[in-house]
Amino acid sequence: MKNISRGELKNSSLPQLKTLCEELRNTIYETVSVCGGHLSSNLGAVELTVALHRVFDFPEDKIIFDVGHQCYTHKLLSERAEKFSTLRKEGGISGFPKRAESKFDCYDTGHAGTAISAALGIAKARDLKGENFSVIALVGDGSFQNGLIFEALNSLKILKTKILIVLNDNGMSIAPTAGGAHEVLEELKSGQTDDVALWEHFGLKYVGAVNGNDLAELLPALERAKETLKEQTVLLHVVTKKGQGYPFSENAPMQTHGVGPKTGNEEYSAALGEELCALAEKNDKIVAVTAAMTDSLGLRGFFGKFPERSFDVGICEEHASVLCAALATQGMKPYYAIYSTFLQRAFDEIIHDVCGQDLPVTFCIDRAGATGPDGETHQGVFDLSYLSPIPNLTVAIPKNIAEFREMVRCSANYPHPLAIRYPREGTEGRSDGVEIGKFEVLHSTLSDILILAAGERCIRLAYRLETEVKVRFHIDCGIVNARFLKPLDGEFLSSRPEKVIVTLEDNVLTGGLGEKIASFYRNSGKTVLSFGYEDIFLPHGEVGSLMEKYGLGMEKILKGLQKYARG
Amino acid sequence: MKNISRGELKNSSLPQLKTLCEELRNTIYETVSVCGGHLSSNLGAVELTVALHRVFDFPEDKIIFDVGHQCYTHKLLSERAEKFSTLRKEGGISGFPKRAESKFDCYDTGHAGTAISAALGIAKARDLKGENFSVIALVGDGSFQNGLIFEALNSLKILKTKILIVLNDNGMSIAPTAGGAHEVLEELKSGQTDDVALWEHFGLKYVGAVNGNDLAELLPALERAKETLKEQTVLLHVVTKKGQGYPFSENAPMQTHGVGPKTGNEEYSAALGEELCALAEKNDKIVAVTAAMTDSLGLRGFFGKFPERSFDVGICEEHASVLCAALATQGMKPYYAIYSTFLQRAFDEIIHDVCGQDLPVTFCIDRAGATGPDGETHQGVFDLSYLSPIPNLTVAIPKNIAEFREMVRCSANYPHPLAIRYPREGTEGRSDGVEIGKFEVLHSTLSDILILAAGERCIRLAYRLETEVKVRFHIDCGIVNARFLKPLDGEFLSSRPEKVIVTLEDNVLTGGLGEKIASFYRNSGKTVLSFGYEDIFLPHGEVGSLMEKYGLGMEKILKGLQKYARG
Repeated sequence: MKNISRGELKNSSLPQLKTLCEELRNTIYETVSVCGGHLSSNLGAVELTVALHRVFDFPEDKIIFDVGHQCYTHKLLSERAEKFSTLRKEGGISGFPKRAESKFDCYDTGHAGTAISAALGIAKARDLKGENFSVIALVGDGSFQNGLIFEALNSLKILKTKILIVLNDNGMSIAPTAGGAHEVLEELKSGQTDDVALWEHFGLKYVGAVNGNDLAELLPALERAKETLKEQTVLLHVVTKKGQGYPFSENAPMQTHGVGPKTGNEEYSAALGEELCALAEKNDKIVAVTAAMTDSLGLRGFFGKFPERSFDVGICEEHASVLCAALATQGMKPYYAIYSTFLQRAFDEIIHDVCGQDLPVTFCIDRAGATGPDGETHQGVFDLSYLSPIPNLTVAIPKNIAEFREMVRCSANYPHPLAIRYPREGTEGRSDGVEIGKFEVLHSTLSDILILAAGERCIRLAYRLETEVKVRFHIDCGIVNARFLKPLDGEFLSSRPEKVIVTLEDNVLTGGLGEKIASFYRNSGKTVLSFGYEDIFLPHGEVGSLMEKYGLGMEKILKGLQKYARG
Repeated sequence: MKNISRGELKNSSLPQLKTLCEELRNTIYETVSVCGGHLSSNLGAVELTVALHRVFDFPEDKIIFDVGHQCYTHKLLSERAEKFSTLRKEGGISGFPKRAESKFDCYDTGHAGTAISAALGIAKARDLKGENFSVIALVGDGSFQNGLIFEALNSLKILKTKILIVLNDNGMSIAPTAGGAHEVLEELKSGQTDDVALWEHFGLKYVGAVNGNDLAELLPALERAKETLKEQTVLLHVVTKKGQGYPFSENAPMQTHGVGPKTGNEEYSAALGEELCALAEKNDKIVAVTAAMTDSLGLRGFFGKFPERSFDVGICEEHASVLCAALATQGMKPYYAIYSTFLQRAFDEIIHDVCGQDLPVTFCIDRAGATGPDGETHQGVFDLSYLSPIPNLTVAIPKNIAEFREMVRCSANYPHPLAIRYPREGTEGRSDGVEIGKFEVLHSTLSDILILAAGERCIRLAYRLETEVKVRFHIDCGIVNARFLKPLDGEFLSSRPEKVIVTLEDNVLTGGLGEKIASFYRNSGKTVLSFGYEDIFLPHGEVGSLMEKYGLGMEKILKGLQKYARG
């Protein structure tokens, strides 16, 4: 669709705005069908975003999208409609708000729960500078369970500033929302109570609930909120329908929350679900915990079969960690499945609660390594670095799905904290058994070069590298499955005769496998060449392309090995 | 005092219990006067803990102390009275709950906000195993601002189990509690409302407020709560007086929250306060943010002089980080002062909000390195490892207070995220200027050995080492102030002729300076010997002793250097 100016939008009649909403909805549907992305949440927020753009003046006014995955309409309305077909493509429009992309994006988001804190910071700076504009935090009801949101609400009276919080309540995060906060909202929404004293204690005026898919209701409500905002922080409770306007998406919002083009590869998450179910049949101590990601982590089957031992605590990554630790103190065997980037939220609890007490919690860390089109905030490239310094923790990196299954089976009797990190997709392959802390030789030679590769992507790269080195430099390379970062297989490393060691990892180089291997081989006379991601935030793009461009490119690696060429 | 058995306690009359409370109070006061520790919070919780031991049956019933610093009476009543004079001493009684220490401690704590999550996990495991005991979370009102507490409350209905939450409300965390959650509690406490509908949405029965320093009121309230608990989760709101029974402590609870023996050294925090005040006089963009630690971080003066630019958001480390990031997007210059161990809570926000947007937030990281008598949960020995993998972040380690001042002054014009980590105490010393990313030669020689030392403690150790090496091995060592871990001073490192490099750091070795230096010098032919903490959780003990025992012992280092001895 064409870019639409602020003037055009402001001058449109209600019927014209409704037509615009249809156009936006079609554009989103068509673009996501091609590029992947978040469908149902964006379809649900079309009218709400149009109304916000109609009532407020962006970019002078500021809007922060919590999580940010529901910002497509905002992008389409802020000078990016004509580029929108590049959504999530390398060099194209990001699927999340990005300050670097547009002056209409005032704060980068990606992880849940940051919007109210961010809005407060921006509003407070405004006050201190004597400026005058509105600051809006748009937050989904899923995020309203997150502790960070509560911390921000708690500080409203401390900070003495005014923001507009728009609660976009579609009754879902990725899965249906549950819990106490949800029930409070449900009661307000259904009109069972008009008791808003609670909110007043926190320093805000509750307004709602308003139908967020009906412009005729929404526009005056926002105008009133804008007025009230001059006096006080407002919480405007807006009820929307996830997937609104597309019957398939309305009926299957979980399946259409995040949509990616099909690749035909197998998913590690499915294997996790299968193995955990098999283990749980035999062992009634096994429990599974997730923070609002049951489906994407492959746990739907487990949750169906073992509802008593399944806990989805909402977008509460920290609470989930402590819960696991406590369950483990009583002899239970918790599996906490989570995306790599979201586990960062629970860093303190991994240290303080799980590893500090040396408890047998298994972290199943999905979407590790570069994740691709979601961009900076979703890349899982820090986990090897932040997990390896933690005492008592074992860190495993399976070479394929079969070995991942084996690791999950091993974990059942492992009496310490264990982290297994793996990408979304891979191949089943085969496993010849796993011993905790032991590397595996995949290709043995009498050569001078040994490649240590961590994880399926890097092992695949190692095989390609081995071929290239043979063809170009006439040298054989050995290949090792470096499947445990911690403990490091010192016995194996000490026994190797090769003079040149190459490490490959789908993680930032700093603090990862390469540094550990270089550190191990210090003073040994061996040459260690390490390849992993550069010290930057990886932008959105295809995984293969990110690897190639930002540290794991074949030509770069070959250049490093050139001087060992024969003949 | 003598150990008191469960039978004795259960059979005591009310007057006898009151006498016991006096004895406990005296013991706590006398012990803390000698050993240091938390005084006022423990004095305030004496009756409450006695009542809990009277009404419940420990260790069959389980109690989790949030933060855990208020557990002294519990320890005195659970077979540890006779050892209590060893409080916080190496090998003695820990100042926090420790499962390894006693079967009466069911869950280790130290950081705020974990108790309700932990209690839920323990209770859920109980239910699944078909067991029958009570689980109690004792939580201070300061922690009730923390997001983790909210996440746990939110999941009460999801988890469908029953616990007793005892809210120990003394109106203070370390500083007076403020914020929305506090106001809700205040209103309930003062009887202005009896509206407890809110709590019922979350699945709990509110009972209170009860005078927690009066056994006659407390005992029947706990008995009733124990009954109600069979049907439903109970929140028992108990009002106590911090410092109860000691006039000095009652009147100065902030000064007596944590009490340490005086050492006569200077504190980095005081310098921080002075420098920030001086900067803020000239630059109205400077703001200071803390998570309930204004005094201990040296910010009292700043808060007094610049109240509009001072934000204590309560025990909300994550929210504080996002707030800083957002303030920085608008051109403000935020300083976030925090203890190293507590910054772990904000790990995701450092990555996602501050560094992901490359915003000029300065983290002033106090209590870095080993912190001593508080033990495992309070050692600041992971920060170099978890901060260095984060893109856009600069990590600085001053050699003394004068250099720290210089770094704070430098930071004012530094346009990127900056972390400065320092111990509690040190010496003023002098600084010859700081350039970001540049090491400093402190002692230059023509020798073969160069010591790279990070931070004041390690630089002191380096000078001692230099002397020992000279005396024993007849070799001079150069000494370098390795004051930036990131960016690493590659130009300097590349230029050095020394063949043997020794690194010293007050951090775990994994992911720290030593690994980075070894990694830098890979393939150079240089020998790199690194000394820092082993891969364990450091127990409580004096800092010097921890350094000596767990990785930075002089004899260990000398042994590593022995083979380079001359003559």
